[in-house]
Amino acid sequence: MAENNKITLYDLQLESGATISPFVWAIKLALGHKGFDMDVVPGGFTGIMERTGGKTERLPAIVDDGEWVLDSWLIAEYLDEKYPDRPTLIGDPSIKVSAQFIEGWLWGTAVGPWMTCYVKSYRDRSLQVDHEYVTETRARMMGGKLEDIVVGREDRLPQISANLELLRGTLRSNDWFGGEAPNYVDHRLLGCFLWLASVADTPALASDDPLRDWLDRGFDLYGGLGRHPGLSDIFGLEQRPGDPELFDHNPREFGLNKRNTGPESTRAETAAIKGEAVNA
Amino acid sequence: MAENNKITLYDLQLESGATISPFVWAIKLALGHKGFDMDVVPGGFTGIMERTGGKTERLPAIVDDGEWVLDSWLIAEYLDEKYPDRPTLIGDPSIKVSAQFIEGWLWGTAVGPWMTCYVKSYRDRSLQVDHEYVTETRARMMGGKLEDIVVGREDRLPQISANLELLRGTLRSNDWFGGEAPNYVDHRLLGCFLWLASVADTPALASDDPLRDWLDRGFDLYGGLGRHPGLSDIFGLEQRPGDPELFDHNPREFGLNKRNTGPESTRAETAAIKGEAVNA
Repeated sequence: MAENNKITLYDLQLESGATISPFVWAIKLALGHKGFDMDVVPGGFTGIMERTGGKTERLPAIVDDGEWVLDSWLIAEYLDEKYPDRPTLIGDPSIKVSAQFIEGWLWGTAVGPWMTCYVKSYRDRSLQVDHEYVTETRARMMGGKLEDIVVGREDRLPQISANLELLRGTLRSNDWFGGEAPNYVDHRLLGCFLWLASVADTPALASDDPLRDWLDRGFDLYGGLGRHPGLSDIFGLEQRPGDPELFDHNPREFGLNKRNTGPESTRAETAAIKGEAVNA
Repeated sequence: MAENNKITLYDLQLESGATISPFVWAIKLALGHKGFDMDVVPGGFTGIMERTGGKTERLPAIVDDGEWVLDSWLIAEYLDEKYPDRPTLIGDPSIKVSAQFIEGWLWGTAVGPWMTCYVKSYRDRSLQVDHEYVTETRARMMGGKLEDIVVGREDRLPQISANLELLRGTLRSNDWFGGEAPNYVDHRLLGCFLWLASVADTPALASDDPLRDWLDRGFDLYGGLGRHPGLSDIFGLEQRPGDPELFDHNPREFGLNKRNTGPESTRAETAAIKGEAVNA
């Protein structure tokens, strides 16, 4: 049992003290979900091996009563296994598989494209000691100077927002990916938006984006973990002439989410399919 | 308790007797998963209200000991609730939310685009009595004559296949969406591919597609429900000069699915990030 209800978390931080890594964000939310307090070990990209005594090159890592646990998925599984009487993170093996799919979609659809818009800010906001490491590694990973990569981002951001419609469709008919309460799927996805807030020096989403309800509730979780003063407002993107709609203002009812409860429930759709007027 | 272990299923069929609806396919798999035999009521699009005594305009519908249950999600939930001691379909509320997301992705990425390739065959293979209904409703829904809609499909099929990489990535590191055994997420997605097999008059996927392992195991489930002789082979698509790769032959290791078990597990990646040679 974690002494004093505290678990040690090795953080990956920006100069502001805000967490940069989406994976560390996910574990912060997971620890909040399990009801633990955190003893945060600060630091950035530089010196992880030294800080952790050679235990790991990557974060998050936790220490619970002297036991080291690495990796954002393995930590979540450890917490459920060790503390089964606290709120569950991953209630079924299928949740992990589906979450990997959905998280892969979010990375391909938004996190990667957003990185091309915010990588300069990602570097500028990092710890001074990390600047050279971030500049060199990201230039290598992304194939260019950070200042060049972000050029034209104002033309890319509207389309990235528009491409999130599948996520909006799911959250229109569900409060959380966990169902009536958040679970580790929400934490994983919210972690990506908290990463966004940590680096977004210009807004990524419209102020009235339908995702805002879920995001606001998610950032408020567990005493407002996602309300760190170092985070930027991700809302406020404006549609310019020629931009795509930032989100679908008139979504078709999402057919796969409609339930057939008898002929009355399908009458309007049947009339539309058959090209008939519906009798009022 | 279902008498004689049998549940009545109202089917939606083609002339061959194969099921056309992906939602009916999902329920056939779900009934197999729960260990039930099926008393299949045959029929197509025409006369559903008459066959079901006015109970529904849509299928699937089941009757279990005189109780009618409609809707492919509500039926699955009913089966878990009524028969909790049989294998579980939906082990956590989060699974339904995630499945709606993933199924929405598959419809947008493949089922919809495939419909523009196969709608003529969809009509031609339907029951004779359904031809006029299918021709008229699908022309209205898709905005053109069925013969015109399928024109150029040989140029679309390779890209649809290429676009399935996210699904391949998930199934490279997991046997089933259910984890070690299939669950209703697999049934939903397999239902889409069984729909594909019911209408594919030309192949949709390469013979060596990495999805084939999961699909073959899925079609074999529960005594080979997906091996109806009316189904077509969906494999055999060939890449022509100028076509995109039908699937990624050299996928980058899917970073989100890798686990950090210590410095040894990340050493090669770290060297690549830093642009260093790895010491063997």
